[in-house]
Amino acid sequence: MVAMRAAVAGASGYAGGEILRLLLGHPEIEIGALTGHSNAGQRLGALQPQLYPLADRVLEPTSAEVLAGHDVVFLALPHGQSAAVAEELGESTLIVDCGADFRLADAADWERYYGSPHAGTWPYGLPELPGARQALRGARRIAVPGCYPTAVSLALFPAYAAGIAEPEAVIVAATGTSGAGKAAKPHLLGSEVMGSMSPYGVGGVHRHTPEMIQNLSAVAGTRISVSFTPTLAPMSRGILATCSAKAKPGVTATALREAYEKAVAGEPFLRLLPEGQWPATSAVYGANSALLQVALDEDAGRVIAISAIDNLTKGTAGGAVQSMNIALGLPEELGLSTIGVAP
Amino acid sequence: MVAMRAAVAGASGYAGGEILRLLLGHPEIEIGALTGHSNAGQRLGALQPQLYPLADRVLEPTSAEVLAGHDVVFLALPHGQSAAVAEELGESTLIVDCGADFRLADAADWERYYGSPHAGTWPYGLPELPGARQALRGARRIAVPGCYPTAVSLALFPAYAAGIAEPEAVIVAATGTSGAGKAAKPHLLGSEVMGSMSPYGVGGVHRHTPEMIQNLSAVAGTRISVSFTPTLAPMSRGILATCSAKAKPGVTATALREAYEKAVAGEPFLRLLPEGQWPATSAVYGANSALLQVALDEDAGRVIAISAIDNLTKGTAGGAVQSMNIALGLPEELGLSTIGVAP
Amino acid sequence: MVAMRAAVAGASGYAGGEILRLLLGHPEIEIGALTGHSNAGQRLGALQPQLYPLADRVLEPTSAEVLAGHDVVFLALPHGQSAAVAEELGESTLIVDCGADFRLADAADWERYYGSPHAGTWPYGLPELPGARQALRGARRIAVPGCYPTAVSLALFPAYAAGIAEPEAVIVAATGTSGAGKAAKPHLLGSEVMGSMSPYGVGGVHRHTPEMIQNLSAVAGTRISVSFTPTLAPMSRGILATCSAKAKPGVTATALREAYEKAVAGEPFLRLLPEGQWPATSAVYGANSALLQVALDEDAGRVIAISAIDNLTKGTAGGAVQSMNIALGLPEELGLSTIGVAP
Amino acid sequence: MVAMRAAVAGASGYAGGEILRLLLGHPEIEIGALTGHSNAGQRLGALQPQLYPLADRVLEPTSAEVLAGHDVVFLALPHGQSAAVAEELGESTLIVDCGADFRLADAADWERYYGSPHAGTWPYGLPELPGARQALRGARRIAVPGCYPTAVSLALFPAYAAGIAEPEAVIVAATGTSGAGKAAKPHLLGSEVMGSMSPYGVGGVHRHTPEMIQNLSAVAGTRISVSFTPTLAPMSRGILATCSAKAKPGVTATALREAYEKAVAGEPFLRLLPEGQWPATSAVYGANSALLQVALDEDAGRVIAISAIDNLTKGTAGGAVQSMNIALGLPEELGLSTIGVAP
Repeated sequence: MVAMRAAVAGASGYAGGEILRLLLGHPEIEIGALTGHSNAGQRLGALQPQLYPLADRVLEPTSAEVLAGHDVVFLALPHGQSAAVAEELGESTLIVDCGADFRLADAADWERYYGSPHAGTWPYGLPELPGARQALRGARRIAVPGCYPTAVSLALFPAYAAGIAEPEAVIVAATGTSGAGKAAKPHLLGSEVMGSMSPYGVGGVHRHTPEMIQNLSAVAGTRISVSFTPTLAPMSRGILATCSAKAKPGVTATALREAYEKAVAGEPFLRLLPEGQWPATSAVYGANSALLQVALDEDAGRVIAISAIDNLTKGTAGGAVQSMNIALGLPEELGLSTIGVAP
Repeated sequence: MVAMRAAVAGASGYAGGEILRLLLGHPEIEIGALTGHSNAGQRLGALQPQLYPLADRVLEPTSAEVLAGHDVVFLALPHGQSAAVAEELGESTLIVDCGADFRLADAADWERYYGSPHAGTWPYGLPELPGARQALRGARRIAVPGCYPTAVSLALFPAYAAGIAEPEAVIVAATGTSGAGKAAKPHLLGSEVMGSMSPYGVGGVHRHTPEMIQNLSAVAGTRISVSFTPTLAPMSRGILATCSAKAKPGVTATALREAYEKAVAGEPFLRLLPEGQWPATSAVYGANSALLQVALDEDAGRVIAISAIDNLTKGTAGGAVQSMNIALGLPEELGLSTIGVAP
Repeated sequence: MVAMRAAVAGASGYAGGEILRLLLGHPEIEIGALTGHSNAGQRLGALQPQLYPLADRVLEPTSAEVLAGHDVVFLALPHGQSAAVAEELGESTLIVDCGADFRLADAADWERYYGSPHAGTWPYGLPELPGARQALRGARRIAVPGCYPTAVSLALFPAYAAGIAEPEAVIVAATGTSGAGKAAKPHLLGSEVMGSMSPYGVGGVHRHTPEMIQNLSAVAGTRISVSFTPTLAPMSRGILATCSAKAKPGVTATALREAYEKAVAGEPFLRLLPEGQWPATSAVYGANSALLQVALDEDAGRVIAISAIDNLTKGTAGGAVQSMNIALGLPEELGLSTIGVAP
Repeated sequence: MVAMRAAVAGASGYAGGEILRLLLGHPEIEIGALTGHSNAGQRLGALQPQLYPLADRVLEPTSAEVLAGHDVVFLALPHGQSAAVAEELGESTLIVDCGADFRLADAADWERYYGSPHAGTWPYGLPELPGARQALRGARRIAVPGCYPTAVSLALFPAYAAGIAEPEAVIVAATGTSGAGKAAKPHLLGSEVMGSMSPYGVGGVHRHTPEMIQNLSAVAGTRISVSFTPTLAPMSRGILATCSAKAKPGVTATALREAYEKAVAGEPFLRLLPEGQWPATSAVYGANSALLQVALDEDAGRVIAISAIDNLTKGTAGGAVQSMNIALGLPEELGLSTIGVAP
């Protein structure tokens, strides 16, 4: 069989690097053009020293010309830049967009949170959500979810699918700093983040909020309100999402567990941990797995659902490759690992 | 003036070490006996190498004989051990207990969470809570709050004091690993905790839960339900507590801010950050300050209150010294710093 | 082709876990018995949560009965325990020992550093050393090198092979905490190691010293003196070895670089970085690569050679699998990655 | 007594912040003007949130006008900027320069390493070196040493003062990232530095090298050659300097220890640890202490001397305040702590 060729736009960033790490181990993909913006012309080895086999590849400028002629194009670009590139690439190319541009179905949500015109809506690359896998089969355009919406949607969709949680979710999530990207900003310096936890985007202003609401509302069949507080943790990778909602009256711990067992059944990348064991982000370092656990806080009357993912793998590049596999008719797990690099 | 002599029981642990760090800088305290259990007979320099001026002091066994004759005795012992020691020390000694034994007013709560008979209730060492400072003046027994209840109570009491939040609080807090103590357990190894976030004690089972409920209910004048999820963060010190509750109908951002401004007014160790700036635990490293910020999530209808403290300082040893100062009639800030060691 | 079956003794530790991580991705190996000592009877999922596909496997006790009947047995046991196991397993089983027992050729060295009788000497699993790959072909017994000797030998053997360095090497290496194993000791707690660098085993007493001397002396054809100082760094994985020796008279930077280029030529896991780029341990996280760089300090007249490896991968389990591949006549790179999980 | 007023130029950086942290606790200093360059006009609370009591102070532009009229001016500026400021401030102002401009006595060394004309030489602010304290008494100009030269000079001067080490030192030091300053550079992002060790400035090119040579040569009375390799460690603060040199013939472990005991005798900030205990940087977090330990590697014939300091405290701001105290005739320890904030 002839491998398909994939280009990566934005190859110098964290998402781009992780896409390349996974594609290097993917048996059906050959790596084509690599592009960058300010880093065009540089050796990849200087920018992504961990990608040893690609060290001598040189970044080209991001343009439709460079990206054309590939079977798959991964876009790991700042939001707002994907639409222009996509228009110039024909329908024969599968475009997997790791940016936000095509995630939201509601144009008003987009405009409120991003302040620019809505570019459209593409099939959503979170195959574990009801109906999503189906929509990805044969798709030529994929909107890869945000990292937080991935973690949060996977933690809570079983509860909403089973109708056992009230429609007001409270979410506090901790992310590794790679989630903030590779742009050098003072508050992301190692000296600032090591040894410190800090919140940001508090009060419903984080741009991933409408995406969570969209996903959970679709599952629940009713609008879910989301109070979302992201925090920055002193680690490079990983998201721990602590999610809760009031339990519907009469919900039991048994019913809760059954809902989650049902939701993960057959899913290659979801794992409901045995009762009493809680997810740690280290266990999914570099893996495409999402670890889940759930408990009923009987005193407070709340369902507590917690997920751990690697923000760059399942939360970005791994989810992108998984969705690509589905779109291309390949085995869903190809080139992806469920095994974390730990400790 | 003749300095008072203070003994520290449990001087080899993290709480004991932090008490000593603060007492070494306290102008009215002279350090007396230092005791340990399994470490009795060892040089403090081998156990607490940061306490340079005490390096050659040797730990004595923890006993009423050794602790007797001091003006102040700090207890930094495993829970359940304070009562026995306290009984043997007369009322002339100020006992400052960093353990849990005397924190809870409700014997049933104690028995449910600790599984042993309730030892009693002492004046509660969180002076910022309404009425607490008054009760500490001249006290001879002080129950130092738990680290999480300190962070959470400080974050939420202004909202409940002002009557602007509904009585169901949802709390997710991240702690540095020193909160878990110095006992060597595999899951606390550096290899396990670095690069990882993980929850524990999920579902209302953490022993600090009833203490939070007690504090917030007292302020609110009605029972506050608390859903509390603690998480372990890859840092040595610090607690970031993300707390929320539904806003009472009609609450505005202005009213919310005013409630917090009023609550912190005149408090030497509470600081409400300017709007838009959020607390980071690094900013209170080694300091007795609590940084607060609050926002109204209008879409979700929730008050979000966040606090950052150093779990060993304001959360344990600093709170203990602050309360001791009040009890002894000394200036409340003596020997304590509001300034974090950062970056 | 029928896969070979491999057992892992010591599957609950860090070395054992890393061996299993690699074997799970090895196309010619099927995982057989997993054994532990104090953890026998436990689910692997509770001990190694990152090894998702093996979560429900239960550890058996370490014994020759359990290990018998496998094509390959990996031993990840405390030193001194391998010989007894090996004796009971026949020559038809390939034994790959990650412990120290069979690394040293000199019985006196062994006895001086380990204080017990010397068990013997097995083919040495560092294929990049002159003659080592040859000795591994068809071997039924393999002594996997120590993690530090791996990093140090790879950094310095090109200089000694080329005869351009004086026979007195000075080495300072920093290791991640996983190098100290999973036994819970107070000084390895996260609270102790985060934010701190500390040396240990200073003054020539570290047990890896004679192994370095052995390797470098064999390459040089003369006894190399080694001054080795290990330090513990606040990270889970990785070794950065900074090695130097006086340059022989007349050595030029060009000659030095040529010696290293020659040494790495054709080696699948060695990479000499382009001039001016220095190795970082993050770039080999989870990879079997060793990154090398070298410089001539003309003022001080010294060759400075630096290597970065992952102590658990190339430094232990990856080296073990690489050597196993050679012994079994498989492609040397099978099941191993050169690509680090970064950032 | 009337406090003296001190200005800090460069108050937004890490050195400036640490100077302010110390001055806030200094009983004889009142904090005057705070200046910045690109941050002029901003609240200090936004830049240095840990400096709670100064949160509402606003940075002024760095200029002689702003700095004039203070008793003491601390300069924490990029190298090359101190001379111009100093010229405009009269001799009545004590200037404490944390930059490099006036550290080196040899103009050729300066020009070689900094590529600009030499500005001159000021009394050197490392009081523990022979003769240095004397030269600081009454000084109006102080050149604060570099952080690495502080750590290295303190580790090795006892050996060279006692004439027991050969004149070729090999040094590998690990620094926390705050040593690289607050300028946002991609390789200093938390995502890059956490979990990673990496060298830089290898091969004698680091600008601190001639300063080490200068200090050690002065002590030894002969030129000491220095091979210096700095490495970046995943921590915010701290330097661990591992230094070695061949022992002179006949040197014994006893003689070595005596040399170090003699060197630290009476020094308030130097501590030679008991035999067998090695320094960890965490033990001096925020403290002005330098922990020392020394061993004789008899096999390799080398003296191994190791020091741990906080690069921002003893390595910069603490050293600056200590030297200021001496210059002003104040007690040397005023406003400084020997106690680290640990764990």
